[in-house]
Amino acid sequence: MPDILHKVAIKASPIETYKALTTLDGLAGWWTNETTGDSATGGIIHFRFADRGFIDMKVLELDPGKRVLWEVVAGPDVWIGTKVSFDLAQDDDFTIILFKHQGWKEPSEFMHHCTTKWATFLMSLKASVETGTGAPFPNDVHISNKGD
Amino acid sequence: MPDILHKVAIKASPIETYKALTTLDGLAGWWTNETTGDSATGGIIHFRFADRGFIDMKVLELDPGKRVLWEVVAGPDVWIGTKVSFDLAQDDDFTIILFKHQGWKEPSEFMHHCTTKWATFLMSLKASVETGTGAPFPNDVHISNKGD
Repeated sequence: MPDILHKVAIKASPIETYKALTTLDGLAGWWTNETTGDSATGGIIHFRFADRGFIDMKVLELDPGKRVLWEVVAGPDVWIGTKVSFDLAQDDDFTIILFKHQGWKEPSEFMHHCTTKWATFLMSLKASVETGTGAPFPNDVHISNKGD
Repeated sequence: MPDILHKVAIKASPIETYKALTTLDGLAGWWTNETTGDSATGGIIHFRFADRGFIDMKVLELDPGKRVLWEVVAGPDVWIGTKVSFDLAQDDDFTIILFKHQGWKEPSEFMHHCTTKWATFLMSLKASVETGTGAPFPNDVHISNKGD
């Protein structure tokens, strides 16, 4: 099965980076400003993108400063059951993130789109942690001709 | 084998977009400003990134306004023999690009890095075609802690 894989370095400690992935405020700073729910292990985080859609993630694993694993429990049909993970490692002043969105059944055009869009959100995460200002929805970088 | 897949929409005609993928000037506007060689079918294009490395692409297919296919003939070991394609389709005022970098033997950390880096270069391509100003090397967007 095809996977979406990314790698990005963030000039911050793993714990600072981890906060941006595991607190509602942190997530709202880079993915979507409409982030609610329960970000503890076993909880469900609700990501809302106004009339563009929604995603609910169940938090499967949290290892502070090291790893975050979510499962998509609501959202686009082809996302349901897929898993999103962030593995963090320190390299001097940086945190290296290995990102994976796995479980896609086929390499659809939508998967191509999601790969590129994840990259822009990971760059938003990097900016959010490094500078305090990311580009979360609705101020996200548009890559398509459909407003997303 | 894992593939790198991206999708991006560019507000320009397929022929304008195709020029940015098939002329030395066009390529220098978004990937690296050190682009030389022969961009015709069967030719080899030399992409240079100063002391960061180099890539030579053999042009395997050119279908005006529709498709570009390259094969990596020199560059990073794990790139050699891989293929990079751009499939173009018109949607109203936009050209939709489906990008693929295929033939990777394994989903290494370097492949994760290249996925994210291709996204930033595709955004550079988009900006270059839409506004005349891309972000080619050495003015590219840095995603790692190694200066690339």
